[in-house]
Amino acid sequence: MKKRNKILLLNGPNLNLLGTRETKIYGNITLSKLIDNLIKIAQKKNIDLDHFQSNAEHKLIDKIHQSKQMNIKYILINPGAFAHTSIALRDAFLAVNIPFFEIHISNIFSREKFRAHSWISDISTGIISGFGLNGYLWALKTVIQLLK
Amino acid sequence: MKKRNKILLLNGPNLNLLGTRETKIYGNITLSKLIDNLIKIAQKKNIDLDHFQSNAEHKLIDKIHQSKQMNIKYILINPGAFAHTSIALRDAFLAVNIPFFEIHISNIFSREKFRAHSWISDISTGIISGFGLNGYLWALKTVIQLLK
Amino acid sequence: MKKRNKILLLNGPNLNLLGTRETKIYGNITLSKLIDNLIKIAQKKNIDLDHFQSNAEHKLIDKIHQSKQMNIKYILINPGAFAHTSIALRDAFLAVNIPFFEIHISNIFSREKFRAHSWISDISTGIISGFGLNGYLWALKTVIQLLK
Amino acid sequence: MKKRNKILLLNGPNLNLLGTRETKIYGNITLSKLIDNLIKIAQKKNIDLDHFQSNAEHKLIDKIHQSKQMNIKYILINPGAFAHTSIALRDAFLAVNIPFFEIHISNIFSREKFRAHSWISDISTGIISGFGLNGYLWALKTVIQLLK
Amino acid sequence: MKKRNKILLLNGPNLNLLGTRETKIYGNITLSKLIDNLIKIAQKKNIDLDHFQSNAEHKLIDKIHQSKQMNIKYILINPGAFAHTSIALRDAFLAVNIPFFEIHISNIFSREKFRAHSWISDISTGIISGFGLNGYLWALKTVIQLLK
Amino acid sequence: MKKRNKILLLNGPNLNLLGTRETKIYGNITLSKLIDNLIKIAQKKNIDLDHFQSNAEHKLIDKIHQSKQMNIKYILINPGAFAHTSIALRDAFLAVNIPFFEIHISNIFSREKFRAHSWISDISTGIISGFGLNGYLWALKTVIQLLK
Amino acid sequence: MKKRNKILLLNGPNLNLLGTRETKIYGNITLSKLIDNLIKIAQKKNIDLDHFQSNAEHKLIDKIHQSKQMNIKYILINPGAFAHTSIALRDAFLAVNIPFFEIHISNIFSREKFRAHSWISDISTGIISGFGLNGYLWALKTVIQLLK
Amino acid sequence: MKKRNKILLLNGPNLNLLGTRETKIYGNITLSKLIDNLIKIAQKKNIDLDHFQSNAEHKLIDKIHQSKQMNIKYILINPGAFAHTSIALRDAFLAVNIPFFEIHISNIFSREKFRAHSWISDISTGIISGFGLNGYLWALKTVIQLLK
Amino acid sequence: MKKRNKILLLNGPNLNLLGTRETKIYGNITLSKLIDNLIKIAQKKNIDLDHFQSNAEHKLIDKIHQSKQMNIKYILINPGAFAHTSIALRDAFLAVNIPFFEIHISNIFSREKFRAHSWISDISTGIISGFGLNGYLWALKTVIQLLK
Amino acid sequence: MKKRNKILLLNGPNLNLLGTRETKIYGNITLSKLIDNLIKIAQKKNIDLDHFQSNAEHKLIDKIHQSKQMNIKYILINPGAFAHTSIALRDAFLAVNIPFFEIHISNIFSREKFRAHSWISDISTGIISGFGLNGYLWALKTVIQLLK
Amino acid sequence: MKKRNKILLLNGPNLNLLGTRETKIYGNITLSKLIDNLIKIAQKKNIDLDHFQSNAEHKLIDKIHQSKQMNIKYILINPGAFAHTSIALRDAFLAVNIPFFEIHISNIFSREKFRAHSWISDISTGIISGFGLNGYLWALKTVIQLLK
Amino acid sequence: MKKRNKILLLNGPNLNLLGTRETKIYGNITLSKLIDNLIKIAQKKNIDLDHFQSNAEHKLIDKIHQSKQMNIKYILINPGAFAHTSIALRDAFLAVNIPFFEIHISNIFSREKFRAHSWISDISTGIISGFGLNGYLWALKTVIQLLK
Repeated sequence: MKKRNKILLLNGPNLNLLGTRETKIYGNITLSKLIDNLIKIAQKKNIDLDHFQSNAEHKLIDKIHQSKQMNIKYILINPGAFAHTSIALRDAFLAVNIPFFEIHISNIFSREKFRAHSWISDISTGIISGFGLNGYLWALKTVIQLLK
Repeated sequence: MKKRNKILLLNGPNLNLLGTRETKIYGNITLSKLIDNLIKIAQKKNIDLDHFQSNAEHKLIDKIHQSKQMNIKYILINPGAFAHTSIALRDAFLAVNIPFFEIHISNIFSREKFRAHSWISDISTGIISGFGLNGYLWALKTVIQLLK
Repeated sequence: MKKRNKILLLNGPNLNLLGTRETKIYGNITLSKLIDNLIKIAQKKNIDLDHFQSNAEHKLIDKIHQSKQMNIKYILINPGAFAHTSIALRDAFLAVNIPFFEIHISNIFSREKFRAHSWISDISTGIISGFGLNGYLWALKTVIQLLK
Repeated sequence: MKKRNKILLLNGPNLNLLGTRETKIYGNITLSKLIDNLIKIAQKKNIDLDHFQSNAEHKLIDKIHQSKQMNIKYILINPGAFAHTSIALRDAFLAVNIPFFEIHISNIFSREKFRAHSWISDISTGIISGFGLNGYLWALKTVIQLLK
Repeated sequence: MKKRNKILLLNGPNLNLLGTRETKIYGNITLSKLIDNLIKIAQKKNIDLDHFQSNAEHKLIDKIHQSKQMNIKYILINPGAFAHTSIALRDAFLAVNIPFFEIHISNIFSREKFRAHSWISDISTGIISGFGLNGYLWALKTVIQLLK
Repeated sequence: MKKRNKILLLNGPNLNLLGTRETKIYGNITLSKLIDNLIKIAQKKNIDLDHFQSNAEHKLIDKIHQSKQMNIKYILINPGAFAHTSIALRDAFLAVNIPFFEIHISNIFSREKFRAHSWISDISTGIISGFGLNGYLWALKTVIQLLK
Repeated sequence: MKKRNKILLLNGPNLNLLGTRETKIYGNITLSKLIDNLIKIAQKKNIDLDHFQSNAEHKLIDKIHQSKQMNIKYILINPGAFAHTSIALRDAFLAVNIPFFEIHISNIFSREKFRAHSWISDISTGIISGFGLNGYLWALKTVIQLLK
Repeated sequence: MKKRNKILLLNGPNLNLLGTRETKIYGNITLSKLIDNLIKIAQKKNIDLDHFQSNAEHKLIDKIHQSKQMNIKYILINPGAFAHTSIALRDAFLAVNIPFFEIHISNIFSREKFRAHSWISDISTGIISGFGLNGYLWALKTVIQLLK
Repeated sequence: MKKRNKILLLNGPNLNLLGTRETKIYGNITLSKLIDNLIKIAQKKNIDLDHFQSNAEHKLIDKIHQSKQMNIKYILINPGAFAHTSIALRDAFLAVNIPFFEIHISNIFSREKFRAHSWISDISTGIISGFGLNGYLWALKTVIQLLK
Repeated sequence: MKKRNKILLLNGPNLNLLGTRETKIYGNITLSKLIDNLIKIAQKKNIDLDHFQSNAEHKLIDKIHQSKQMNIKYILINPGAFAHTSIALRDAFLAVNIPFFEIHISNIFSREKFRAHSWISDISTGIISGFGLNGYLWALKTVIQLLK
Repeated sequence: MKKRNKILLLNGPNLNLLGTRETKIYGNITLSKLIDNLIKIAQKKNIDLDHFQSNAEHKLIDKIHQSKQMNIKYILINPGAFAHTSIALRDAFLAVNIPFFEIHISNIFSREKFRAHSWISDISTGIISGFGLNGYLWALKTVIQLLK
Repeated sequence: MKKRNKILLLNGPNLNLLGTRETKIYGNITLSKLIDNLIKIAQKKNIDLDHFQSNAEHKLIDKIHQSKQMNIKYILINPGAFAHTSIALRDAFLAVNIPFFEIHISNIFSREKFRAHSWISDISTGIISGFGLNGYLWALKTVIQLLK
């Protein structure tokens, strides 16, 4: 029997509030609803989608470390503000060497100038920003294609 | 009878060579094949997808100007290197005020540093970079959703 | 019966050492003694002052998130060094949209140059720096006035 | 019989849309109407005013080159966005060595920061910005005085 | 009887020397002769043109403050070197909120680099530079049009 | 009989307009009313509060010089825009060596970027910004404490 | 009986993976093996070497705070990526005022440019980088000498 | 019979004026005369030298694209001002991957500072600047050697 | 009878306090005593030395303007902090075109970094800094030589 | 008989004064005493340690050149101030391609800011700074290990 | 009898290693062989070519000084790394005022970024870089032409 | 018998050409004539003035080192271009800790921008620039006063 592929979806700080805060920017779909939907799509393709959200940098790092042991094939990450400040997160990706996609719900290039720089973009496979929650969907679909 | 929606896909300088140059970065699918595929997907959703590629900045600007008269609903653009140098292109978008998505086949953040800045990102709806030819697909699918 | 107003006082990293370290700069009043005094002043005005200190960025973020549910009216924060490095903290404030005052015990403009920039000053209501422990007092008194 | 003086008015990219786009900023007088009016004023002073608009950098450069042969005495130019990006345009002016005035309809100093720099201002005779369509008029009148 | 409109013309430091210093750059028409001419043009249009020159920043600020009480409709200002150094002047304009035009006799973009930045350009209605004394004339004429 | 302590309150350029301009930012309490109130508070503590407002840099400098002879114990200053441009003011403070507090009514960190730098902050005892007119009050109360 | 000296060795984020990741850069000796060896060397000199690794900034800060109570004489730290981002860590060192050495296994000057700056180097006693695991050894031996 | 080698010489914007403009800097030999001479030298070595000048960026790009099909061995280019502004030109060279030499008639390092940067120098084989028209000659001779 | 030469000595803001403030840096000779001494030295050489000190920028500018009418041959100036902020002062020197020497009592290069830039150094004949009050003497002696 | 390994120790400008100047920073052990000690340590391991100190850049370069012929296996260098200014030294290392360690006695990161950059760090194997004379010792011991 | 012209060829630091180091970049022709060849070419044109290589900045400066006395007509120089660091060399050229050409064997624009700046390019007649040893040849041939 | 004081005058690169090069800037008095004159003035005051000129950085450094042994009381130095590039020279002064004055014949602030920075100004007692050869004289006279 063929083994199912596993992928990991990470959400960084403040994304636990999705659907409840600044709904004009982020919409009113909650994080759990979003995740449920993504898991279903993945399962149809025989892929296990693991999800983890944290406001703590070290917990995200720990999760990335575990991905190696867990045989995660791809990581999808919305790093939130850690995109702009965390080199430790970058190092975690460099350490496990698992390909990943970076997702931002809003267009980070049309907000404060400091949001235009991400410490992980250059080591990501791709970045999608400003596509709303669709960003997660397209990243997942890309991974599904790559895993075929 | 309901009128069909129209969208425009623009490809900037050097993208005419798609599939024939630097295939390690850009793959070996040619531009015409890519466009054919996207047009088919659009047509299934009763959307007319107009495509235009040019190495000339002014021809792209002219096309954007015409979009207003042609009642284009969304523009998808891979501006190529004009992303980094053309403020006139930016002004054309500002002038017609049609929402657009910016697409880059490769990850512009992992190449030369000057590629990390685009003059149109901050006025785009969203940007996708490093997803290969899928970038066009996801942008198109997003527009299809928005037009529903 | 009129409901009491609630405000939150946050202290960031290293402020647990107040009164015991670098006393020439920070004085020798401990954090708990300071807090006791502020709580008393607030109570006289029928205001509940909640206090929380942490060296962990995510715990401060969690606390800010909870403020919304707890119906906190104002936040007073001495972000310590997170002022200079944490965009996630900024995002937490943006998310809950509760007005806040930023307090620094020492004059951050007469120390190392990097301390002159705070990621939360521009979204704060006001900033006070170099007034010693009085900074907490005046910020509290300002909030008391605003709550009248 | 005295020979009539000739001057050239150049309009750069996106100015073909004048009066039809962003009318809150640029007003609703069309380019052709503006030009007609300026030509009449020039003719009263026995001056031939040649006008040329293009979205193409090279066509503007060609026109500047021809000015030498055509014995153009002064050039008025609204370079649009080429002000901020075209050194080739600058070189064309350096090559023909014809004095020129730079015109911007809106106040380029109160918009995006990058609009505050023009590659041709320092080699122009004068620059006028934010005077609306009057900018063209005053530049023309200045040239009329200089040609007396 | 219709009340006459009032406008104010301000000249900053060193402009008292007009026509007597660096005549190759500034011409040899004196300030008083220039002002006389402008006042006559204004009077023909039933406009009172008040003029004030000073080498003192605070006197210019005082004059701007008084403009509010004096019901000044527009201010024309050649701020001289204060353009590059005086934020207090900027604040005075912000405080009285009277629209103004900024005039420079010489082309400030073709001189020392520091002259390319003015603290008041972005809050002015328009800026004219390098048109010689005509700059005053065209600014006045623009105001005349606006007051019609 | 114990001698009364003397302190000086300085207000810089444009603050004479307090309560009459930009009232949305600065409120509608006039400068004289504010000063009256502060003087009363000081007098209750047997402190003479001298006040001086000027739009002229040199008059503020002169006043600071006189403070030494007048035996002023503390200076409170709202330098207005001079905060961002006057090194001479800084030098005056360095010369007389009297401790001082810097006050800004609005939050200078949430306005134009250039307002985030003050030439006197690093040599002040403390800075308070964005607390409205309360800024004066808390600075005064701090001085009262220090003089006990 | 003479009391034994105590020193603390801290390892920052991602160093838990030592010997298992990027072995071409970091070698294949695991962290625990390295620590065992260092502890033995210290013990021979009657020194207690306490070791602590964490991916969490606040846990490292807590440990540094405790060092004061624990009477730690020197700290050896490989801050990992926190070197480049954590001012809170710097403040913790400033607070406890215990001399420390900074260790980087790889040569941080021959990697990405941002790695050349550390927020704690200037307050460290010394820094060693690019000596591989020997960096820990030489730092320990230096401390042994200093404790004699 | 041995096939002749083909090389391409490109001249960018404003170089059509060679020999007629700014002769003090560029000399008075016209472009066509220069080209004739270079073609003769090439022919003696059994090399076909194709020449193309354009003020249009896209026409130069098109020409570079065609070079691949035309089996061009080397390109010599005087990019004029496009050296400083055109990343699309750079991308065209990257796409066809044909080695090229960059030529500037004048010394670009002794003119305006912005001329010291070229977007194609780092991907060229060599650059020659300030050798006058000889620059073309030496570049051609170098190519002749390389083709032996 | 030969006409006596006239020179002007200007002292800028805060120099009225000379000999009474920061005596460790500036010594304890007062300004008037210094001036008396310099006047005597000048008189022996049949030179009239006019002196003027002001904390007001505009008064110094006025004085420089008058120098032209007064037939001043050289100006010696210690601009104090105006060296770092006043472009209007620079313009006054440019306007009257009288050669001048710039004097700073202390070494401006070993103090705060911003003191290393003076807006008038590049248009002065010479600058002397850190020679204490001797700076005035040597500048005067140089002028005496030049007037011979 | 096994051939002995040879290593070279270079000391740059001003290090001849070691032990006699600024002893608070550099200690009072002279250079010759230090070298004697290092040579002994090397000899015990059958390694020839050659030492050369010079204040002249070219003599250090010459020595590095000779290292190739002399079959030097490793170079230890304290480049002194040449670290911050000499690219020629960098080129010498690149030319001979011998691995080397960079040593600084004091902590170059806690002194003037310009000392934080070294032109040779990124091409060195490792750098040690602030360990006092021990820096030489640990670098030597590292080389001894590498030569085993 | 006509006097022979004299020219000087200077080679800076590390160029003595030509042909023996980094042969992939610099080729394997030695310096002496190169020089021999150039001297022969010069002699055929009745020109004496003097050559001097040194790793010492002062010896190159001395040689440039002597050029004046020796009646050198042109200097060819490959300054090596001194291009990027030696202003003294620049001053030597300014002092003797002999025209010179700057040669770099490799393409300095495609290596480390700091190599793109040369302190002597802007005062040279021309610069050639990346043409390999041909750079010397073309520079010599240009001088031969100029001496005709 | 009282011992004579000794002072040292150093002249850096290219100053050997004094009086023979660029005489419009530097005058036509030779270095030896200047030195003779200064020595005579010193001798009258019982001071031995030692002079040394070199184009070699290391020889100047050596001379500074020897000054300590030679009991030199003050050093006068015209560092020439080494002012802008030599940190080794700075270190030599720091090492011997002898007070020194920095002299530049021309006004370094009105030449190329890079000449405005000197690596030794901030550790000098004073700097004089643009006073011509008088700069040496006034520096010497200052030292004479200080030695009284």
